[in-house]
Amino acid sequence: MSIQPYPTSSWGHGRIAIDRSNSDESSLPEFEAFDSVTPRAPTTQTISVLGVDMHAADNKRLHNTSKYKNSNLIVRRNNEFFITISFNKPFNNQQDNVQIELLIGSSPDVNKGTYIILSIGIEKITGGWKSRVVEARGNNVTVGITPDASCIIGRFRTFVVIVSDFGKQRTQRNPDTDFYVLFNPWDPADQVYMPRETDRQEYVMNDVGVIYNGEFNNITTRSWNFGQFEEGVLDACLLALDAGKVPILYRGNAIEIVRQGSALMNSQDDDGVLVGNWSGDYSIGTAPTAWTGSPEILLKYARESCVPVCFAQCWVFAGVLNTFMRCLGIPARVITNYCSAHDNTGNLKTDIVLDEDGKVDRSRTRDSVWNYHCWNEVYMKRLDLPEKFSGWQVVDCTPQEISDGLYRCGPTSVNAIKEGELSYPFDAKFVFAELNSDVIYRQSDKYGNSKIISVDTAYVGKLIVTKRVNSNAYEDITSTYKYPEGSDKDKQTMQNAERRGVPTRDYLPVAEAGVDIELQADTIKIGDNFKLKMNIKNQTSQTCTVSATLTGSAMYYTGVTSMTFKLENKTAMVKPWNTTNLMVDVQAVDYMPYLVDQANLLFVVNGRIEETGVSLSTMRVVTLRPPELTIKVSGTPRVGKDLLVIISFRNPHNFILKKVQLRLDAPGLITTRMKSYEQILPGGSVQYTETITPQTPGKKVLIGCLDCAALRQVTNQLEINVV
Amino acid sequence: MSIQPYPTSSWGHGRIAIDRSNSDESSLPEFEAFDSVTPRAPTTQTISVLGVDMHAADNKRLHNTSKYKNSNLIVRRNNEFFITISFNKPFNNQQDNVQIELLIGSSPDVNKGTYIILSIGIEKITGGWKSRVVEARGNNVTVGITPDASCIIGRFRTFVVIVSDFGKQRTQRNPDTDFYVLFNPWDPADQVYMPRETDRQEYVMNDVGVIYNGEFNNITTRSWNFGQFEEGVLDACLLALDAGKVPILYRGNAIEIVRQGSALMNSQDDDGVLVGNWSGDYSIGTAPTAWTGSPEILLKYARESCVPVCFAQCWVFAGVLNTFMRCLGIPARVITNYCSAHDNTGNLKTDIVLDEDGKVDRSRTRDSVWNYHCWNEVYMKRLDLPEKFSGWQVVDCTPQEISDGLYRCGPTSVNAIKEGELSYPFDAKFVFAELNSDVIYRQSDKYGNSKIISVDTAYVGKLIVTKRVNSNAYEDITSTYKYPEGSDKDKQTMQNAERRGVPTRDYLPVAEAGVDIELQADTIKIGDNFKLKMNIKNQTSQTCTVSATLTGSAMYYTGVTSMTFKLENKTAMVKPWNTTNLMVDVQAVDYMPYLVDQANLLFVVNGRIEETGVSLSTMRVVTLRPPELTIKVSGTPRVGKDLLVIISFRNPHNFILKKVQLRLDAPGLITTRMKSYEQILPGGSVQYTETITPQTPGKKVLIGCLDCAALRQVTNQLEINVV
Repeated sequence: MSIQPYPTSSWGHGRIAIDRSNSDESSLPEFEAFDSVTPRAPTTQTISVLGVDMHAADNKRLHNTSKYKNSNLIVRRNNEFFITISFNKPFNNQQDNVQIELLIGSSPDVNKGTYIILSIGIEKITGGWKSRVVEARGNNVTVGITPDASCIIGRFRTFVVIVSDFGKQRTQRNPDTDFYVLFNPWDPADQVYMPRETDRQEYVMNDVGVIYNGEFNNITTRSWNFGQFEEGVLDACLLALDAGKVPILYRGNAIEIVRQGSALMNSQDDDGVLVGNWSGDYSIGTAPTAWTGSPEILLKYARESCVPVCFAQCWVFAGVLNTFMRCLGIPARVITNYCSAHDNTGNLKTDIVLDEDGKVDRSRTRDSVWNYHCWNEVYMKRLDLPEKFSGWQVVDCTPQEISDGLYRCGPTSVNAIKEGELSYPFDAKFVFAELNSDVIYRQSDKYGNSKIISVDTAYVGKLIVTKRVNSNAYEDITSTYKYPEGSDKDKQTMQNAERRGVPTRDYLPVAEAGVDIELQADTIKIGDNFKLKMNIKNQTSQTCTVSATLTGSAMYYTGVTSMTFKLENKTAMVKPWNTTNLMVDVQAVDYMPYLVDQANLLFVVNGRIEETGVSLSTMRVVTLRPPELTIKVSGTPRVGKDLLVIISFRNPHNFILKKVQLRLDAPGLITTRMKSYEQILPGGSVQYTETITPQTPGKKVLIGCLDCAALRQVTNQLEINVV
Repeated sequence: MSIQPYPTSSWGHGRIAIDRSNSDESSLPEFEAFDSVTPRAPTTQTISVLGVDMHAADNKRLHNTSKYKNSNLIVRRNNEFFITISFNKPFNNQQDNVQIELLIGSSPDVNKGTYIILSIGIEKITGGWKSRVVEARGNNVTVGITPDASCIIGRFRTFVVIVSDFGKQRTQRNPDTDFYVLFNPWDPADQVYMPRETDRQEYVMNDVGVIYNGEFNNITTRSWNFGQFEEGVLDACLLALDAGKVPILYRGNAIEIVRQGSALMNSQDDDGVLVGNWSGDYSIGTAPTAWTGSPEILLKYARESCVPVCFAQCWVFAGVLNTFMRCLGIPARVITNYCSAHDNTGNLKTDIVLDEDGKVDRSRTRDSVWNYHCWNEVYMKRLDLPEKFSGWQVVDCTPQEISDGLYRCGPTSVNAIKEGELSYPFDAKFVFAELNSDVIYRQSDKYGNSKIISVDTAYVGKLIVTKRVNSNAYEDITSTYKYPEGSDKDKQTMQNAERRGVPTRDYLPVAEAGVDIELQADTIKIGDNFKLKMNIKNQTSQTCTVSATLTGSAMYYTGVTSMTFKLENKTAMVKPWNTTNLMVDVQAVDYMPYLVDQANLLFVVNGRIEETGVSLSTMRVVTLRPPELTIKVSGTPRVGKDLLVIISFRNPHNFILKKVQLRLDAPGLITTRMKSYEQILPGGSVQYTETITPQTPGKKVLIGCLDCAALRQVTNQLEINVV
């Protein structure tokens, strides 16, 4: 029963006008005559509006939004804010009919929550929004407005309307009276309510964090400037939603914001914020390893009219998505999973194919095990699911697989993953596979026939970590995702998963060798020669002769190998109940020419027990440690006083570092600074000095990052306390 | 551990090569040398292939695919088919290493099921496909091949490969050996297994059906040519998947085919098959009411390089989606829901807004109740859901609302809808609202304040029907979707739905009037004057005075009204426990100028009881019956003998019918014939004669349809038995 045409051929033209941009506006007439009345201007006796004061500073204090560097009012849902309207004469409740109109998008509609009409003096609830007169003094009336607990988030426009018998007289459009509504983790009625203040301070209010990478034996840390309060970041986040054409109507639902946000942070399919690149060649953009935080990226995206920013890998995606969530008021954190399977076919099997000689057959190995993978968790009530699946939800914006047409993943309940309850939206099976895949070593002959030679059920999803609340140490949250490997509960989870369409583990149990191979290495610096220890443990009562092939390759953190630099055969005779340690020498001259990105080496060993013909396989990633970047400050940091920051670096290698980028980031102190060096000679040093004048007291973090093609991710951070 | 680059910026360029077209091919070398061997041609002693016979006719009989008008082999999953390879000499199991390669798409990959390698003589299972030598006679070997029960569906290419020590010698590309693999409802291992043969004959094999429309008091019938076996239709269905870029990898999963199919039958977002149009102006295309079946539409789409076909409404969408499903082997049927809510905000409330005078306020009424709405059901195991949610699934390709970014809906389990279990994918809440919304009558004043005046909880989802198996009568399947209104189970369902995020019914119970208004009408022909009976039933012990406002509008079947042609006030005094019948005269001269599409009139009555001030509302749709189209044949229809079909029509109206289209469709006899008439004068007649020569015996249906702007959907059908 509507007179609008039905959608005929494209988005947004339709019976259901689909409004997909918070930047677009409709213009409302300043005078709107009522039907069947000859329009004429209101008489002079009528009350009129002289001004509207949004009380931005005062309201922001009440709404935990003072930290946003934005001159407009920012409020949170279901929390009252106050505005004062100045009239030309005292407001008379009996005579004057005054309405406040709050609008969002270009086709505001009372039925859709995009057009809120509140009457002053009449306590009335419209679409869940409440208003009341708090004070009337002289010609001024102060009104308290409480947004609905599930209202649309974004930038609203404010109008005041005088209603007479002839029509409506509206105030002029004034951007100063625009205000933003955000999710409210402080309010029990909000979908993203988070009960503890310490949690909210970390997961919503903390604008700097730590992301873990490296490998699970050697976890490394990098600080990240989330910068959700930096000038322009909130507008950039809303712009990303507009660029992704997310209907305004859906923007009150955190599930929708999270799901679409996971699609919009990557450039695949929808010109989202970041272009993923794992090729090793980042020359036409910024290397993923070179960034120090999100604001630089989001502001570049907004400044350049939504052209995707080059380049990102998983921790950059996760860092920026974290900013997006916290900025809009959704509690969020960055997670690292060691090691993370990327299983092409969703069959919970990650195949490593070896050739007849036991070498890794790079052309036949399609799946990969990421050394680590970063994703995010967001905290919310899942109103669409049974109650036990509320709480932390996985969301992953790194473009890995298509979910229902777009590159996106989640939100999916962490509790559901743990129980193997994979039927519920969204993408639970993919996340489950990242955490629970088995590594299958297959040997293949030249005709393409392959057989399984060994299976490792514990390699993937060994350790899942996130930054601890109010600390930079990591918290092991593996137990929130998984029951202990092999426990009854774990078996129950695997059975549930199979009942929900995860393929059963259909390979036969591999013959028990009774012999184990293990690879060990210490912490090693880039450029060092080192020894890799191969321990062969014979747990049988027979002597065994093991002939082993070790393949050493340079590897991206995604498990994709670039070059094989070492191939060595070793044979050992191991006595019953004994362990033999073989040493493999690894020389810098061998690996240095092939190092890529984060300087990972992958060693795969394939052994054969001569006496029984049984095969053994294992693999080990060694992450080499880069040279140090030092950050120092001069004297005690004080508010209003100049502080000197000195970053220095010495090239310890015997090769020239070319086109070096050095970044200094200091959330709450300065915006990201970048300095380029054409080259740094072998043994040469650079020193970069910046003067900062702190404006507010408290703990701050200085983040430094040096990056060039030959040496990635040389990072450091320094915490300072401004007094 | 792959050497391909990771996806960098767009679909399909990526580490995970995403192959989205069955039409694209890779070319394979005719000779492929093994690594580390100097390539040279095979020696003359080697066996070579002279030809491959796909035994299309014989295999098709075994696979229930003989009806497809397609010269290539068409098989179903997990059912063996036989091909014969002719060699230049007898095949020697010990000496000769011969492989059959089956490929689909442009980047065939053994790990993805897009590249099947079967060895002759070695009984081996590759990716679930099986092969065995059935017979070796002379130089010929007949091989039995059984596709995996969950393999990819589509068009495969066949190669035979001779493997020598030097490399692989491959047969040339030959389109004659291409074959199609379809879903297999006959096989218990297939996801779409349907146990009963009578059901399979109806829901997979029946190529003509009946779609119900009209209104629930006056159900009308139109035959529809599904034509899934017609020449070119299978290719058109696969082309639609290609046009929609559905990854080949996903095409073995019926859930994915159904979900993407529901997006691809409409042109919104993805240039799918049909353009929806409910405007009343279809002059630049074919009116939705003028079509007689799917083949004409699908073949036009394919012929015109995937330019969307103009125009469709719900039954056309449902008819074409039904063809798509049955053609690919997924059991499917067309459903009609009387009346169907289209609730803009997903809140289970459909608002009818009346103005101060009790007239329908067309500008404020945003939701609508469709007189009827057609969707489809498909039958499948939902491996992703708990077992009880397998069986019939709702899928709807009429573009109504966006689901996860695209216009699509489903599949969603009918059982889950019935239980109010709305957490499971896909779009259960939307379907639930179509069936269970309440109609809320609101009265609104000019300031925009509105109050609820009455609620009808039973108007929507009253009756759900589909064609009965092996009959043209309808089957009432309401009980598969809903428990009886008001039963304990029904209440439980509503509670479950609320727990899954459906908003609670938050309006207060409306004061019980004790007085009912009902509207009644007989079956009425277009152009007739008629009487509408308004029955006012007083079930109280007080006399009541009812003043009622009746609004009569011409209406599209979507509930969208075009013009108000009648507005009448009536007053009646009704004695206690008595019924008063008021008659309202409706004159043809009043409604004829405004009739649209399927000639529906909507009457809404709003009454007020003077004594108590209580309001009453009700509405009633009257579908006017069009003049008759007659279809006759000459003599007894016999195979091979000319049969004369005569369609005639007389214009009974006093106005000229302009630009008249007349269609004759006869599935299995002829392709759709269309005849145009510039005009038919008042009282004038047309007669159209077509000569048909039946090729096969059995029951056939002749479908006729006459359509023009002033008179829509004049249809008839005649069943004949060819002997």
